[in-house]
This record gives sequence, structure tokens and C-alpha cells, in this order.
Amino acid sequence: MTQNHLIIFDTTLRDGEQSPGAAMTKDEKLRIARQLEKLGVNVIEAGFAAASPGDFDAIRAIAEVITESTVCSLARANENDIRRAGEAISPARKRRIHTFIATSPIHMQNKLRMTPEQVLERAVQAVKWALEYTDDVEFSAEDAVRSDMDFLVQVFDAVIEAGATTINVPDTVGYSVPQQWGERMAQLIARVKNSDKVIWSTHCHNDLGMAVANSLSAVLAGARQVECTINGLGERAGNASLEEIVMAVRTRRDVFQLDTTIDATQIVTTSKLVSTITGYPVQPNKAIVGANAFAHESGIHQDGVLKHRETYEIMRAEDVGWGANKLTLGKLSGRNAFRTRLAELGIALDGEDALNAAFARFKELADKKSEIFDEDIQALLSENVVNEEHFKLAYLQVASQTGETPHAVVTVTENGKELRAEADGGGPVDAAFKAIEKIVGSGAELLLYSVNNITSGTDAQGEVTVRLSRGGRIVNGQGADTDIVIASAKAYLNGLNKLHANTERAHPQV
Amino acid sequence: MTQNHLIIFDTTLRDGEQSPGAAMTKDEKLRIARQLEKLGVNVIEAGFAAASPGDFDAIRAIAEVITESTVCSLARANENDIRRAGEAISPARKRRIHTFIATSPIHMQNKLRMTPEQVLERAVQAVKWALEYTDDVEFSAEDAVRSDMDFLVQVFDAVIEAGATTINVPDTVGYSVPQQWGERMAQLIARVKNSDKVIWSTHCHNDLGMAVANSLSAVLAGARQVECTINGLGERAGNASLEEIVMAVRTRRDVFQLDTTIDATQIVTTSKLVSTITGYPVQPNKAIVGANAFAHESGIHQDGVLKHRETYEIMRAEDVGWGANKLTLGKLSGRNAFRTRLAELGIALDGEDALNAAFARFKELADKKSEIFDEDIQALLSENVVNEEHFKLAYLQVASQTGETPHAVVTVTENGKELRAEADGGGPVDAAFKAIEKIVGSGAELLLYSVNNITSGTDAQGEVTVRLSRGGRIVNGQGADTDIVIASAKAYLNGLNKLHANTERAHPQV
Repeated sequence: MTQNHLIIFDTTLRDGEQSPGAAMTKDEKLRIARQLEKLGVNVIEAGFAAASPGDFDAIRAIAEVITESTVCSLARANENDIRRAGEAISPARKRRIHTFIATSPIHMQNKLRMTPEQVLERAVQAVKWALEYTDDVEFSAEDAVRSDMDFLVQVFDAVIEAGATTINVPDTVGYSVPQQWGERMAQLIARVKNSDKVIWSTHCHNDLGMAVANSLSAVLAGARQVECTINGLGERAGNASLEEIVMAVRTRRDVFQLDTTIDATQIVTTSKLVSTITGYPVQPNKAIVGANAFAHESGIHQDGVLKHRETYEIMRAEDVGWGANKLTLGKLSGRNAFRTRLAELGIALDGEDALNAAFARFKELADKKSEIFDEDIQALLSENVVNEEHFKLAYLQVASQTGETPHAVVTVTENGKELRAEADGGGPVDAAFKAIEKIVGSGAELLLYSVNNITSGTDAQGEVTVRLSRGGRIVNGQGADTDIVIASAKAYLNGLNKLHANTERAHPQV
Repeated sequence: MTQNHLIIFDTTLRDGEQSPGAAMTKDEKLRIARQLEKLGVNVIEAGFAAASPGDFDAIRAIAEVITESTVCSLARANENDIRRAGEAISPARKRRIHTFIATSPIHMQNKLRMTPEQVLERAVQAVKWALEYTDDVEFSAEDAVRSDMDFLVQVFDAVIEAGATTINVPDTVGYSVPQQWGERMAQLIARVKNSDKVIWSTHCHNDLGMAVANSLSAVLAGARQVECTINGLGERAGNASLEEIVMAVRTRRDVFQLDTTIDATQIVTTSKLVSTITGYPVQPNKAIVGANAFAHESGIHQDGVLKHRETYEIMRAEDVGWGANKLTLGKLSGRNAFRTRLAELGIALDGEDALNAAFARFKELADKKSEIFDEDIQALLSENVVNEEHFKLAYLQVASQTGETPHAVVTVTENGKELRAEADGGGPVDAAFKAIEKIVGSGAELLLYSVNNITSGTDAQGEVTVRLSRGGRIVNGQGADTDIVIASAKAYLNGLNKLHANTERAHPQV
């Protein structure tokens, strides 16, 4: 890597997954990891191995299949976390451990209950433990934004001395402004000994809408790694958007003079995959990946105007993968064509049974819908990837009629046993949910209900997302069907299945 | 106004309305304008008077009711545009004309076909015409980002001499980076004669995700007006978000040392109103107004961490109006309570008939839904505000059943005449849309279909947005109902009604 290269570190699977309800299954994470590799991401932060056995398994599964990107696990600066991270990433061809400890007075006193000397010593020890597993070790000073500058310099000097190769400076609370954040990075690079021996990295949150500008300000000050997520996913207002970072650097090469290894034509596909799996929609006026990002209402077309401009690259819809949505399969497509298309989409199914089940669902869909797009296939596979399908929809019947109260009849199977209930509701979806609740009695609260068409046209599949909350846990359930009421019932049951499976985890603040 | 005051210029009704399908009716614009006034916006750009008779009427209607905010119309630098703008804003207590002309070589040659000398002369003349109507005249140099600096200075010198009181510098294409944009503003302020006699303004687009950071960089360089929109609405990736600008300035008072007149507790209500009316959803991870913006998944709560931090204000959910959603009315609420609540929400209906019709819809909803929230009332009123209701839903019946093909029976009234049709579809919504198309035969293409719950709970109203396209025109149709299929049919008919009404307009690029 040269000084002209900007390393793209994607943390969709770690920091992005900390969004309420965005918890993903192992299979979902694998699909995203494969797409991130195809996108050309340099480092995939695949999770936080010590958080839960599920996180560990997912990281290990990703480490087994990803060969081009570096696979990284987060780890607190303690021996157990680092050994778990080291084991999880061990199958990977390129592996990184990302260890962190808080360096701000408030965190050291109240959270860690450690003195600065103890923190310094632990940071150095953590890097040494990590080096037992890989020579690619990243160190983050949690809450760097509120840490004492002299102490930060002291810690970074020591961890570089110990062998850390990447130094990450996070704006944990997302309150920085670009000028300030660039200045902090510049000071650190100027004051830390051997700062030219490591890659400087930045990790910004978007609470005031400036995560991308802050990250790029750090880049102008010398950072050569940006930590970011697809669609800017992440807790609260999220992280810096990968797509905005990449396209800003590429479009404004005159300012940044940096390359990335990102294949920008994969951006839209990646964005849609992450949105589908997490249930987090992308607003139409989102830069780069929003449905309107390249839609021009005005008379004067931007491209026409821009072509006379020499100082920056023109950004075109096709550059980031818009319009690549291909009509790929139809009613007459066979099992082999289906298998081939899955492979092209980077979807690997576990064994012939899984393929057969997916193909059966595909044929069922093709009977109802004339044109099958890549997004339809993605949705088809999203629906049933929860490993443990405890509750399943067997039958649903409900009518909508102006002036009448909808009445739903639902049959759900639980461990193969059929359970039936009926209920009235304010609408057919409400009636269906009430009937399901009569059967399951989950007591979950419905926080959010949304529907998006996966493709255009009136026969498109509706993809429904429900956000359910119970006892402090929040999950997103998804269901897709050409029938919106059936999709809703599937989504509700998918959410209940997720609540039924136990996926508790710890959540670090980096 | 002092040097410590930042003027908030909202252009949701002008630049925001240029988003595909976001065209609003006069009543919708009035409702938003009233809410913007309540929010404390200093200048409301209410439209572009010369664009169409509809735009003119909407601006005039707003000018008649708004007393606290300045009401502004955009106008190209020609006599007709300026006189139309002047007439439209004439009823307002505080009025502004915002005139613009392109100053970049490419625009002057290819679009205007004018020499720089002619452009300079026209700019001065435009300001003089505008001064016949108001002494508050804003001048924008369209495409300032690509204009020659010496020429820009010359033009600004001349228009200030002619009497312009605000000078706006737009980043029309949204490709700037903060350092550069701040530098350009600083240079202009340093070089333009009498620059201290005017307010400097900035108007940034978000194509690379940096509109807010660019605007604030200009503010640090001396700009004292920011042009922005609610939810960052606008063409392509939109404009700078009002809510992010305001909360960044407020939270980072240590950096900006500026006040605004914005009542931040009105931000969420305004955001929801604009989203409801335009049909543009806000993604959950949007800063400030996204559903997750203040949701913390991590163990450590941000507030707890932040309270030890002295250098910036803590931003809390309630500061921007989250949680202000009040249970206001129920089944037993009478006509007076309903009228009072409408007034509190800033909704004015034209006459008793409109109130009676709205109240009837309210009672109908209260029969189906136990708790009525402010958002429900907003939705109730959004649905029927298209003045010309050419097509109306009279009857709909359709069933969902696993394994069966949905069949819809629909009756639509057109000019009071009842028309009936039946159709099969991939789902109940598809079947209903196909039946409606059999009746109407619009040939419109469905570009987008989305549903959002207006409030939480399974008996919430679903609000459906459909985006229809026909012959190059794009409209968003909305419908709300506790029954999602009925809401969908209403939304489709609402879209067809908008296509039926003629709302063609010109779209400037500022």
C-alpha cells in the first residue's frame, strides 16, 4: 500500500449491526461479507468475537470463505477477548485483530476503573497478545475525542512500539466538526513518534450529519484508513457512509489525490443487499444510493453542464451500479439457471436440500410474478435464512371491504403442530397479527411497520419489515410475497422467530 | 440582526418541491408554511412565482397568512419574473425577492447566450426592479462554484451598489468539500467592496454527502444565512438539512458562537409533516429526525457519558421534539375539540364544509382506531387536500388467502358517475390497482410503492405512497387507512387525480 492509497475498512457487520433490530444471522452476515469482498473492501470487520457464540461462529465462517479482503474481529483489551478474536479469524488468509481501550478520563474512571498508567500498560499488553495471532493489529483509543492529547500521544507511542500497525481515532459521539477533527488528526500524526510507520485511521459517527466530512478532513490531515458502513448504517444516526466516502475521494481526486480498490459499480447492489437483510430502508434523497440520487427534475441536465468542468470527475448513475438491475430469470428457468444466478449473486446455500427449497419458492413466485429480478431472488432467500424456524405460516385468509371489519383466519405451525385462530382488526394486517398473537401469545410490541416494493410494477413482491420489542430486546422481522397481507404475516412470524432464538450480545462503543 | 445571529432560510417549498413527485398543492404548502413559521424560520422561500399560476397562487396565499417569517419568491433576472414575484409576495408583512442569474462561463454561453457584460448589467437591473417591491432583495450567482472569481467579485460589487441586501453563493452541483467552500466564501467576503453591508448566504447540495459541512464551513468563513430544507429534501441527494444545521450550531456553540431563532422542539413535528405531505420517508439512521437518531443499543448511555463534557451542549431527544407525540383525541371527542386541535396543529380549513368533511372522516377513523394521535390527524387531512378530486373510491372488496389468486371488485366515481370493474392480481393491492386501471385506463407506470405506519401499534393507520409516471410527469399519491389495501387504492387514485390536474412548471437550478 502506498501513501496514495486509502484503505476502506467496512464495519457494517460490527458497528452497523448495533443498529436497533439489525442483528443478523450467520448466513446473512456471510452473504454481506461475500458482497463486500466483491465490492473491493480492504478490511471487513466481521464482528466482535467475544460478544456471543453466534458472533464468534459468524466471524469464523466469514474467515473461512473470504480470501481477498482482510477479515477483522473487534476485541476489548483483555486476554479472553483477544484470544477469542484470534481463534475466530484464524482460518482467514489475511487477518486482523482490532483491539480497543478507552483513553478519556471519564471512561477510565467510571467504566474501566483504571488509572492512566494501567490503561497504558493494558493497551501495550493487548497489542502483544494480538500479535500472537497476526502481525496486522489495529489499536483504537475509545473516546479519543475527549481524551487528553498528551496521554493519547503517550499511548499511541507505546502501542506502536509494541507492534500495532494501524492506529484508529474514533469520534464516538459524532459531535465533531471537520476543521477540528482534521486538526486533531494532524496534531497526533505530528506528535506521535514513528507515526510514519503506521496507518492512521478515523471512525466517525453522524449525529450532526458530518461523519463523511469529518472522516475526509482526517484524510486530508494524513489518515489513510476510513472506517465506514454501507448506507451509513449504525447506532443512532449511524457511521460515515462507505459510498459517500468512496465517491467523494474518486470524484474529487483533484483534492484528495488518493485511490481506493473499490469497484464502484457494486455499490448499489451492496446497498440494496444490506437494506434488505437489515430491514433498514434508504431514503430517496440519500446521496449516491438513494432512489433519487441521480434523478434530475430540472430542465438542465447535470451531465451536460458538468462535461465542461475539468477539475473533477463527473459522477454518473451507472458508475455506482444503478441500472444494473437485470431481468434474469422467469417462469421457465430451470434449476441449473437458478443455481448459476445464485452463484453470480454470491449466494451460497448449504447443500442440495437448501437449494431445492429455495428453487421451490422461486417457482412459486414465478407463477405469480412475470419478471424475476435479482432483488426478488435476494428477498426470496432473506425470508427463510433464520436457522431456527420455530413458527411457520400454514394458512391465512382475510378480506378487505370498504365499510366492513376485516376478519382473519390464521393457521401457524409450531414444531410441526398446527394451531388455528381467528380475529377482527382495524385492517387485514391488524386482524392477521391479532390472530397470530392469539396463537403465539408473545406479548411483543410492534414498534414499526413498513413495506417496500422490491422491484417496480404492480405485481412486484412487497417486502414487509416489522420491528418488535419485548423485554428490552428489539428485532426486525422480514417477509416477502406478492400478497402484502401474507408478506406481513410472514414478517411478523419472522420477528417472533428471532425473539424466540436467543441472540443477546455485548455492544462496545467505538 | 447582529453578527451573532444565523439566518435560517428554508427552501422546502421551492427547492425541496423540485424533488421528483414532491409537487404540492396550495393547501399543502400553506400547512407547511404555517409550521415553518411556528418552527421559527426567518425566511420562507415559498416558491417561484413565474413558474406557473399554481406557484403564484400558493406564494400569495402564504404571503397572506404568514406574519413572523419573511416570505420570499424566487425570480430569474428578468422583468416578468420579478414583477410576478413582487405581486405574489405583496400581501406579506415581511417580503423578499430572491433573484438569480448564472455567472459561470458555461451557463452564460450555453444557457443564457449573454456576454459577461450583459449578465452584469442584467443582474443590476434585476435588483433595481426588485427594489420596486421590497427593500429586502437577495441576489444569487447561479453556479457560483464554477464562476471566475474576479467576475463574481465584480458582479457582487455591482449588485450591492444597486441595493441587494443578501448575497447567496450556491454550490449547485454538490461537489464541494468543506475546506474549499469555506475558502471561497472567505475570499469573496475579503474582496467584495461593502461586503460588511450585506448578509452572505450559502446554498449547498448534498451529492457527496457534505452539504451540511460545506454550509457550516461557509458560516465559519463569515456567512450569516444558510439555505436549507426540512429532511434535506431536494433534487437528487437534496439540500442541506435544516435540522442538522440548526442542531450543529446549537450543540457546538463553542465553535460557531451563533444563535438562531429556531424553536428546536418543533423540528420533529415539522419533519413528519413534510414527510407526510411529500411522501418522502426519512430513513431511521438520519441524523436528528431519523427514528433511531436517539436510540442507543450500547450499554453505555450517551447522556451519562456526555454530562461530564463541558465544551458542547448535549443534544437530547426531547430538545428536538421527540416524544411530543400526544394522545389528543378519541372516539368521544366532539367537533369543537377537533377544531381546537386543528388550530393548535396550525391547520386551517377553508370554511365549515371542509371542517365538517374532515370531522366526518375523523369520526370514521375513531371507530376503527382507539387512540388518535396528531400524526393521524395530519394524515387524515393530507388525503383529501387535492382540490380537484376527479376520481374517488366508492367500494372495494378483495380477499387474501394462501394458495389462492386475489380477486378485487372496485367501484370508482368519476364526476359522480359510478364505474365498476373486477380483476385478479399477484396480491390484493395488485388486484385492486388492476381493477382501477380497467376503469380509468390511465396507462401510468408504478415506480414506487411504500407503506409507513403513522403511529405505532397494530391498529395504526397505514399510510401508502405510490409514485406514478406518465408521459414524463411523476407524481406521488398518498392514502391513509387502517386497512392497508384500502389505503393503497386511495393512494393510487390520489396519484391519478394529481396526474389529471395539470401542474407543469419550470425548474431553476440554484
